[in-house]
Amino acid sequence: MADQTMPVVEHRQKVCASFATDANPRLSAVLEAVVRHSHALVDEVQLTREEWRAAIRFLTAVGDRCDDTRQEFILLSDTLGVSTLLEMVNAAPAPGASEPTVLGPFYVPGAPLRPYGDSIVADPATGGTPLVMTGTVKGLDGIPVPQASLDVWQVQPNGLYDIEENPSKRNLRSRFETGADGAYRFTTVRPVDYTIPDDGPVGMMLRATGRHPWRPAHVHFLVTADGFKPLVTHLFDESSPWLDSDAVFGVRPSLAVEMAGEECAYDFVIEAR
Amino acid sequence: MADQTMPVVEHRQKVCASFATDANPRLSAVLEAVVRHSHALVDEVQLTREEWRAAIRFLTAVGDRCDDTRQEFILLSDTLGVSTLLEMVNAAPAPGASEPTVLGPFYVPGAPLRPYGDSIVADPATGGTPLVMTGTVKGLDGIPVPQASLDVWQVQPNGLYDIEENPSKRNLRSRFETGADGAYRFTTVRPVDYTIPDDGPVGMMLRATGRHPWRPAHVHFLVTADGFKPLVTHLFDESSPWLDSDAVFGVRPSLAVEMAGEECAYDFVIEAR
Repeated sequence: MADQTMPVVEHRQKVCASFATDANPRLSAVLEAVVRHSHALVDEVQLTREEWRAAIRFLTAVGDRCDDTRQEFILLSDTLGVSTLLEMVNAAPAPGASEPTVLGPFYVPGAPLRPYGDSIVADPATGGTPLVMTGTVKGLDGIPVPQASLDVWQVQPNGLYDIEENPSKRNLRSRFETGADGAYRFTTVRPVDYTIPDDGPVGMMLRATGRHPWRPAHVHFLVTADGFKPLVTHLFDESSPWLDSDAVFGVRPSLAVEMAGEECAYDFVIEAR
Repeated sequence: MADQTMPVVEHRQKVCASFATDANPRLSAVLEAVVRHSHALVDEVQLTREEWRAAIRFLTAVGDRCDDTRQEFILLSDTLGVSTLLEMVNAAPAPGASEPTVLGPFYVPGAPLRPYGDSIVADPATGGTPLVMTGTVKGLDGIPVPQASLDVWQVQPNGLYDIEENPSKRNLRSRFETGADGAYRFTTVRPVDYTIPDDGPVGMMLRATGRHPWRPAHVHFLVTADGFKPLVTHLFDESSPWLDSDAVFGVRPSLAVEMAGEECAYDFVIEAR
C-alpha cells in the first residue's frame, strides 16, 4: 500500500488540475469535487474491476429505464437520500418555520384552483376514507398570511398518483388560496402508504440490500405567498408503519400528524424573504 | 449553517443505516460508502436545485448515448480518472515491474496468433510509417519468460480502431508468444494521437471545462504467462504533445518510449503470482 499511496494522490491531483480552467469556474469546482469524492470512494472500498463493471452495467440499466414518464436517476437520487439532502442544503428552515421535504416526481404546475372547503376528489371512483385537512398559513411572527397559495397533491387509494394513470385526470390535485384570516380547508381522502416504482434497477438495488420500497402515507404541499419563501413539504400520517423507514428519507418528525380522525389540523409557518 | 449541521449528519447516518443489512454485506458496504461520499460532495459544494437537475439531465443523456458499440459511462469513468485509479488500486506493481494502465474499450479477445517478427498490418490500405516493436518478457528476477502471450492492439493511422470501422477487420490487432529466450518482435505502423469519442455528453463536459479529447499515441499490450499476474498496459510515444494531458489519464512516465526510429525496444517485467 505504501508504494501505491503517492501515485493515487498524484493521479487525483492531476485529474483535479485538468478541470481547473477559466471556462466555467463553478462547473470546474463541482467537477473537481466530483473527482475528489469519487476517487476517495474507489480508494476507500478498494473497488474491484468486476465491481466497477457491475457499476457501469447498473448505471447503463438506470439510463435504459428512463423515458418520458419515468426518471430512474431521480429515483436513485431519492433512494440514496441525495434528494432530501439537497432540500436540507438549499432550504434549511428558520427555527419555528415548517420543515421542508422533497418535491417528488408527481408535482404538476397549474392545478385547478378550488374555493375554501371544497373537495379535491375529482374522480367519483376514488374510494377511500374521507378526511378534512385544515389550518392556517402564518408567518414566523404568528400573524396569518392572507392570499397564500397552497398547491395540494397526493396518492390515490389505489396506490397510484393521477398522472401515473392519466396525466389529464387531476384527481387529488388542487390549489387553494387563503382568505384574510390565512385559513385553508379542503376535503380529501386519507392518503395511503405506497411503493416507489420498484420494477427497475433501483428496485433491484433495494431488494439486493434488503431494503423495502415503501413510502409512508402523506399529502404534498407547495405553499407560496408574496414576500415569503416558497415552502415545499409533506404532511405524513403519524400512524404509518413506514414512518421510520421511508424509502426516500423524506420524513421529518415535525411533519407527522394525526390523520386517523375526520379532520387533520396543521398550521404552516413560512419565512419572509 | 449551525442549525443545518445536525440534520445533515443525522440524515446521512439514517441513509447509511438503511443499507446496513445482512442481505449482501459487500454491496451494502459499497453503497454505504457511496452515500457518505455523495452526501459529502453535495454538502461541500452546496449543490443548488438547478445544478442537481442539470446533473440528472447529464446522466440521462449519458445513458441515452450508450448502445452496443458505445459506452458513454465508461468514457465518463475514463475522463474523470476513475478507470485509471481502478487499475492503480487493483494492480499496484511491485518495484521493478512494468506499470499497468487502463484496458480501454478497444480490446477484443481471440486476436489472431502470429509468428515472431510478423506484421500486424492486415489491411493493405492502412498507410502510416512502419515501426518494429521488440524486446523481452522477463520476471522480476530478470530471467526471460518463455511462452508468454502478448496481445497487441492499436489505433490505425486514420485515428480509428479497426472495430470502430468493422468488428471483423482485425487490423493492427494480433497475439504473439515468446520463445525460449522470452523475446517478442513484430512489425506495425507508428501509432498516432487520436481523440476519444467526443460527440456525446462527455465531449460536452470536456468542452464546457476547457479540456481537450486527445490521447497520446500508444500501443496496447496484454501480457500473460503461466505463473505470472496478467499485465495490462500501453507503450506511449514519448514525443506526443498530449503526453502530459492524456484525456483519460493513462500515461505513466515509465511507459513513454522512443518511437521515432525504425525500431522501438521495450522489455516487459511481469510479476509471479
